[in-house]
Formats: sequence, C-alpha cells, structure tokens
Amino acid sequence: MPLAEKSMIARIRRQAGVGRGVIKSIGDDCAVLRVPPGHEALVTTDFSLEGIHFRREWHSPESVGHRCLARGLSDIAAVGGKPIAAFLSLALPKALPQTWVNRFVKGLTSLASQFDVTLAGGDTAQSPDGILADIIVLGSVLRGKAVLRSGARPGDKVYVTGSLGGAASVLQDLIKSSRTRLGMTKERGRHFFPQPRIEVGQFLRQKRLAASMIDLSDGLSTDLGHICQESGVGAELRAEFIPRNSRVSLTLALHGGEDYELLFTSAKAIPEQIAGVAITEIGRVTQGKNLFLVNGGKRKRLRPQGWEHFKK
Amino acid sequence: MPLAEKSMIARIRRQAGVGRGVIKSIGDDCAVLRVPPGHEALVTTDFSLEGIHFRREWHSPESVGHRCLARGLSDIAAVGGKPIAAFLSLALPKALPQTWVNRFVKGLTSLASQFDVTLAGGDTAQSPDGILADIIVLGSVLRGKAVLRSGARPGDKVYVTGSLGGAASVLQDLIKSSRTRLGMTKERGRHFFPQPRIEVGQFLRQKRLAASMIDLSDGLSTDLGHICQESGVGAELRAEFIPRNSRVSLTLALHGGEDYELLFTSAKAIPEQIAGVAITEIGRVTQGKNLFLVNGGKRKRLRPQGWEHFKK
Repeated sequence: MPLAEKSMIARIRRQAGVGRGVIKSIGDDCAVLRVPPGHEALVTTDFSLEGIHFRREWHSPESVGHRCLARGLSDIAAVGGKPIAAFLSLALPKALPQTWVNRFVKGLTSLASQFDVTLAGGDTAQSPDGILADIIVLGSVLRGKAVLRSGARPGDKVYVTGSLGGAASVLQDLIKSSRTRLGMTKERGRHFFPQPRIEVGQFLRQKRLAASMIDLSDGLSTDLGHICQESGVGAELRAEFIPRNSRVSLTLALHGGEDYELLFTSAKAIPEQIAGVAITEIGRVTQGKNLFLVNGGKRKRLRPQGWEHFKK
Repeated sequence: MPLAEKSMIARIRRQAGVGRGVIKSIGDDCAVLRVPPGHEALVTTDFSLEGIHFRREWHSPESVGHRCLARGLSDIAAVGGKPIAAFLSLALPKALPQTWVNRFVKGLTSLASQFDVTLAGGDTAQSPDGILADIIVLGSVLRGKAVLRSGARPGDKVYVTGSLGGAASVLQDLIKSSRTRLGMTKERGRHFFPQPRIEVGQFLRQKRLAASMIDLSDGLSTDLGHICQESGVGAELRAEFIPRNSRVSLTLALHGGEDYELLFTSAKAIPEQIAGVAITEIGRVTQGKNLFLVNGGKRKRLRPQGWEHFKK
C-alpha cells in the first residue's frame, strides 16, 4: 500500500469512528456489524466516477463526497430502511492534492453523521485515470417489511416527494455556463447537496402506506418504468400535477435524473406532507403494461428515457 | 441507463439467481438479505482496476472475474466467516466487446457457486477509461467470534497456509514475457485463479485455534506488519521455514502480494494440514514492535515492503 493510501486510511479512520451497530470497522479484513434482531440486512452499491457522475470543475470536493453517499442512502430510503454503515472504495490519481481528499471525506462524513451512519471500511487504490468512488451502504429493515418495486397494483395512486427536475436543471446551467462553478442558491443545493428521504421512506413503511417504492435517480419516466416492470402493471401520469419549479421544464421533470426524491404507489390516504416534505399525487397505476402521460387533455405514450449524465 | 447496461443487468440476473439467505437480489433499490440468528454481518470491498490490478493482455476475462471475487472471499476467510452474497459495481468502456463481459461474469459466478455465494446486486456505469470493478462480499460469523488482526500475543507462533510468492512470481514471468499470455500450469493457476481459504478460516475459528488472522494480499512482510500494528506486538520469522516453490525467490515469498493464503498466530497445537491445505510454522510473535527475519544465523530488521502491482 503506497504511503498516500496509508495516510488516507488513517485520516478516514480518525473522521469515521465506530458507531451504533458497528463492532469493528476500518483496520481489519472485514467490518463486523450487528443487524438488529428480527431485521433483514439491506445492501446497495453506487459508483461516483469523475467525468461520468461529477466533474471536478463543477463540483466541490464536499459536494462530490455528499452526493456519493446520498446515492446509497437514497436507495435505503426507497425500501423504507434504516442505514447503519457505509463503505467507501476510493481510487485516486497520483497527482490529486491531499486537500481534495480531505474535503471529499468531510462532505461524505458530514452527511453520514446526519443519519448516524458510520464510515466502517472500504478499499483504496491508485486510479489509472480520474477519481473513482464506489459507495456501499448497509442498512436494516424489519423482517419481510422492505417496500419493493414489485408491489404496485392497478388502482393505486402514484405519488412523489418534493419537486422534480431541479437537479437536471442545475446540470443544464452548468453545461451552459462554460464549465465554471456556479454560485450556490437553494435550488442549486438540490443538485450539489441532495437530501436523501430516509424519514419519509421509514414513515411510509411503518404506517404501511406504500405498496411499492423507488428513488428517483434515473428520472421519473425511467424509474416509474422500473416499478411497472417489476409489478407487471402500467401507469398514467397527469402532466399538470407533476411538482416542479416554474423554471424547470416538463421534459426535465419527466426525464431528468438525480433528484433523489421518492416515487411510490398506494391505495391508501396519504398525508400532504411527511417529515416536512411535500407529497404530491401525480397519477395512477393501470392494468396495461405501458406508461401514459395526460397533458392538456391529450393522452400519449410516455417512453422511459434513460438518464445519461452530462448528455443533455 | 444505456441499453448495454440494461442487457448486462439482465444477463447477470439470469446467471445470478436468488440463493441461501438472499430474500431479494438484483432488480430493486437494495438487496435484502438474512443474517443467521446470533450472527454478525461481515462486509468487505475490493477494487479490481484495469492497469492496476489486471491487464487485459495478460488476464483472461474469466481470470479477472475469478480474481475480483477471490479478493473479497479471502477477506471473509481471514476472519473465519462464511460468505453469503456478493455485489458487483462494474464500469465498462464503451468499446468493450460483449463477450468480454459474459466471460468475466462467468469467471466470477463460477467461483461464487463453488462457495454457495449469490451475486445479489451492484451497480453498472460507463467507464471514463478502462474496466473498473468493485466487489463487495457480505458474510456472517457467530456473534463475537470474528478472528481479528488485533489478537496476537507475545509467545504465539506464526503460521501460513499453502506456499508464498507464487502469484508474484507469475507476475514477473508475465512482465518478462513482453506482455503476451502465458500457457496455464498448476503454479500459474495460483496467480490467475487463486483459491480463497474459506474452509481453513472457518476451521481455525470453530476450533478457536487462531488468536489473530489476516489474508496475504499485500505480501507477508506488509500483512504481518498489519497484525503486529493492530496487536501492539512484534514478530520474528525464520527464512528457511517460509514455504515457497524452489523457483520462487525469498524476496518474492516475503514481499510478493496476491497469494491469498492465510497468515495467523496461535499459542495452540496446529494440525499440519487443514481442509487439504498445508499449514507451516514460520516464526513467533515477540514483545517488541518490529519485524525481524532470521536468515542463515543472522537476525535482521524486516521492513514491510508495500506491494505495488506491476511495479517489480
């Protein structure tokens, strides 16, 4: 292990600590963790690759670290689970300044501590090109109670948290702004420091309000497509109901990724707000296997448009 | 998600299936897994990066897939645990032939099925450059019984499984052979298809024979250094006892990486063979904090030499 890696592990170790449910963390072959009795373990992994998921000229190191972990926490939120620990595999180019790494780890551990999550291990390597991070989050959920994508039934209503398209809209601004950093506004914060909806996911699961659920990482049309595919159903959305900021286009709200809001279906009465986050009904689950959008009285097929980073 | 990724997930899904302890695998936000009652969860993550850990001109896709998972399984072996499921984060360059991916997944799942391990999820992305894989293995161990690096005590004997330096020796041959593929021999198999010592690790833990343990991924001098550091002890090795093939130099046996044998310390009587694998006593744990090598009657400081892939 090169010296730079050694010192990085030592630094992460200092910033990480050992927390709830974590018996042994960084500094052994494996992390040893305790899953609460009567619970199942949840595992999710997500890449954050320079040039694919972020750019150093656009994203501060703190933002890269925060977004890296937010991706994993959002997956735990999407099944109604509670995160326990995170693991970071991090490959760095030789020439990367040490301050970048410090600030990256700070961004990651700040978000981790907000949800009582321990950074409990990982791997380090030299990168052949660019910064490569893979975040793993381990969580838990009561046995048999994870909210899956496969639970949607015809007649369910479709709901989303927060508002959509904001993250993709900031990405458009970044592309237009000739690749310099933008000043921070509340709306831009949604892109740079997205807030995983852990509390909302847990509330929906505990109250048995969600029949199916997913987090919006690839975009509404794609992620609703995942629910429909896994559940063997279709869905119809109402364009005018889709919550979006006035300067965000319908196209971005339908297809833009990385909002990290929750999309769920339910046959029950749903509060207008959960844990301070607005919940909006945007359509209904149908028997067919296709997605439709009703817009200005017209009903058209809605095709999932795979979200590709930096491509639009 | 680009089409190529979609088809890869579908392919992995077909080859993966759902196994013991895995409630929900690929196709949801998280994998949902069951850790046996009275057990703790083990988590380990390891990068396999093209140009750092493997080269396409040297390693067949099956070998890359096998070695990728072997790294994680070996970490589970090193605490005496049982692997349950693996997760693969895989970023691929656009131009990579589909057959490469198929053969890679085949190499990985072949080893997985040997240990009843389910490939239960992961992430896919486009790679900015080269093949990037991160393997996560989730395992379990009886509560409080994981064999840690920190358990070595002065007076313990030091043991290794199998023989050392073989993997590094093949790497030297590859470098000398002007980067063409080598024919396969039994010894070369140790580099291309290393065998994680899961059964040995479990036997040592179950019989309470190992006070401390680690797997040999970075090389004997470095990994013994990790045990000594975590245990606050030193160690003295006997050069003539270190098991190596006659054509492997002492230097490679001391410092070469990626053998994936187990190194452990014990104050108890140890069988000469466990699960068909030879066990060799190579030295003892001491009170100082340094490593020494006794060679031809001379006692010299043994400095951990960080193993750098392809650097020697």
